[in-house]
Amino acid sequence: MGSTITEKILAAHSGRETVRPGELINAEIDVIMCHDVTTTPAIDLLKAHGNLHVAYPERVVIMPDHFVPNKDIKSAEMVAKIRRWAKEEKIEKFYEIGRHGVCHALLPEQGHVRPGTTIICGDSHTSTHGALGAFATGIGSTDLAAALATGELWFKVPETILFKINGTLQKGVFAKDVILEIIRRIGVDGALYKAMEFTGNVVEEFSVESRMTLCNMAIEAGAKSGIINPDDKTLDYVQSRSNEIFDVYTSDPDAEYSDVIDIDVSDLEPMVALPHLPSNGKPVSQIGNIPIDQAWLGSCTNGRIEDLRKAAAEIKGKKVAQGVRMIVVPATSDIWKQANREGLLDIFMEAGATVSAPTCGACLGGHMGILAAGERCISSTNRNFVGRMGSPESEVYLASPATVAASAIAGKIVNPNAYRQD
Amino acid sequence: MGSTITEKILAAHSGRETVRPGELINAEIDVIMCHDVTTTPAIDLLKAHGNLHVAYPERVVIMPDHFVPNKDIKSAEMVAKIRRWAKEEKIEKFYEIGRHGVCHALLPEQGHVRPGTTIICGDSHTSTHGALGAFATGIGSTDLAAALATGELWFKVPETILFKINGTLQKGVFAKDVILEIIRRIGVDGALYKAMEFTGNVVEEFSVESRMTLCNMAIEAGAKSGIINPDDKTLDYVQSRSNEIFDVYTSDPDAEYSDVIDIDVSDLEPMVALPHLPSNGKPVSQIGNIPIDQAWLGSCTNGRIEDLRKAAAEIKGKKVAQGVRMIVVPATSDIWKQANREGLLDIFMEAGATVSAPTCGACLGGHMGILAAGERCISSTNRNFVGRMGSPESEVYLASPATVAASAIAGKIVNPNAYRQD
Repeated sequence: MGSTITEKILAAHSGRETVRPGELINAEIDVIMCHDVTTTPAIDLLKAHGNLHVAYPERVVIMPDHFVPNKDIKSAEMVAKIRRWAKEEKIEKFYEIGRHGVCHALLPEQGHVRPGTTIICGDSHTSTHGALGAFATGIGSTDLAAALATGELWFKVPETILFKINGTLQKGVFAKDVILEIIRRIGVDGALYKAMEFTGNVVEEFSVESRMTLCNMAIEAGAKSGIINPDDKTLDYVQSRSNEIFDVYTSDPDAEYSDVIDIDVSDLEPMVALPHLPSNGKPVSQIGNIPIDQAWLGSCTNGRIEDLRKAAAEIKGKKVAQGVRMIVVPATSDIWKQANREGLLDIFMEAGATVSAPTCGACLGGHMGILAAGERCISSTNRNFVGRMGSPESEVYLASPATVAASAIAGKIVNPNAYRQD
Repeated sequence: MGSTITEKILAAHSGRETVRPGELINAEIDVIMCHDVTTTPAIDLLKAHGNLHVAYPERVVIMPDHFVPNKDIKSAEMVAKIRRWAKEEKIEKFYEIGRHGVCHALLPEQGHVRPGTTIICGDSHTSTHGALGAFATGIGSTDLAAALATGELWFKVPETILFKINGTLQKGVFAKDVILEIIRRIGVDGALYKAMEFTGNVVEEFSVESRMTLCNMAIEAGAKSGIINPDDKTLDYVQSRSNEIFDVYTSDPDAEYSDVIDIDVSDLEPMVALPHLPSNGKPVSQIGNIPIDQAWLGSCTNGRIEDLRKAAAEIKGKKVAQGVRMIVVPATSDIWKQANREGLLDIFMEAGATVSAPTCGACLGGHMGILAAGERCISSTNRNFVGRMGSPESEVYLASPATVAASAIAGKIVNPNAYRQD
């Protein structure tokens, strides 16, 4: 019996020939990413346990992103503490303001994600990096401390669900719509502690960035990780960013899956996840008349250059509706620069949106567009839990960048095709 | 005996032939600007006093700026409350996200400041608008409520100090350096409740924007207002932005001043106001070696297009020093767009700075670059009080945009001429 890509990576990192779902293993960790929110408790733990040091500083990448540029004294002190600790521990990969960005966009962009590696971060959307054929998962601050001190971490090898995504996507339907549809089908605990492996012609045709959108939201179905077998697109993406060597693993044809789910997306409409769960998705044609107060474009899910391009294509030459605030947050400094070279930021600004410095910002209720009671936001982000972007009496609707942009123009949630000229 | 421009404006607005310093008058108010911080207490006062309504909605201009895009639930609720009230009161001039900006930059830019008018706002830097020959002053929320309800406000007619600023500015010396030098000379209470009237060849040669920098910081010497007699530059600036008529007043040659201060600026060096008072200015050559953690460019004092141009000229082709965060905050949406058309934002981003959406931001410790304990910031803003930009244990050094930018490159506070190529 063969193995899945996830099993192969975990076996290789725990000195085993093979591993099977349910086994407890200790795995070498190749990349430990630290952001501003969950790292200081890990530092405190290390100091409290005999002043433990970082075993492999060269494996650590620090990317403050949630509340940067610092939104208040607390967040400033938090980053200052991490900065001091990084200096003490001789961690050199620190992405300071100006080179900064949302960690899950910045990590692959800067060449730190390679196929076949293990990646952890004290952040649930670490599943993103499976898009490049890595085993990547979110952990808590305690596990983060353990991994920093030892370079290893324990895992229960997850079962894998295989999602075969085939068909032809309609215009205005993107990776975000596909993953919202999957989560609608299986629910927010539909892949609990499992690896979600994505395959099929649609996934093959997706850009690396669209694959990241898919894997990013695996956690919203409760998954341990999302993963996609590397192909030429993956290798091109990685090798244009990193000279480091890596091993490519792919799932065997006879690998064992806990479930195989076939999805034909040919009839899929643009999807909107209504409050207050990502699984609460509906085709946009079925949601009725929902006026909005804010349209938010950004995040680790959909703040990359292709997302800004899709949104700009909807907006070009039009105006954001009266009474709607549209906030555009390029996910990284390089994405900001690229978007500006392509004239996208001008398109947003001329339409009456505002463009922020890179940050996670309002996605998690941090800053840069927090909602008041009774306000409604369409957002390209990943979670619409109660109070996620501000007041517990506000509402968040999740959608693709195209739908967010078209809705900003319309002043209510609409199908991006409603405005499409092409 | 003649009158000053300030006395003439106040006389005309109180139905008097002339007024004299010390007299108490009731003046018509032409423009009431409301921002996000001081307006909600005024709304509460109006509602508490028999549900008073706004006497002249057409005179009210609402410009949320301090904590926008909303930094947290509190600020979101604050703006939401103002938005509801504006609708109830039929106030149409509401600058929503996307058209927004720092109020003292946005008000004149959008044509709401005209010579000979009276302008109030619940914000101390309202003195800015005297640069266009208006009487403009900051008030508290109680007076704001009274003015909203009646269209009038009481004043004690201020005495005027005349500042004659003559000479030839050296390279790298700008309006910010001049006003820091003036405040150094007279102290933070040197013009207490007085009008500071600026004249002399240097003021004549200044752009309207530089004049705004001068008048903006009048409050930092305790002044009631700053003011400059209108000239052709003023009229060009205003008439290109507004079709509304206005009366031009200028000071009589025999007007009475409480003091006349002659300043020759030919020997003036770039100035830096050391912590923790704006009056603590020193020539940059005398401050020794002061490394910085952050360089902040923006605010109602120095976030306009000419400020960004001067900073970009220092930075072009160079890199922000390792360990320094440079944050650029264009003061308004139109300034952002203009700066981008001119390639300035690219220059900042390529240098490793980050560019924010317009906001008052960290100037007042709001968001977008707050300081931790022990951190040091060079800033183009207006106040360096203890804790102004964050931790009470942080330090703020005030300087011109050119000095801020040159210091960001050097990693310590330097004379912009140190890097000048021209």
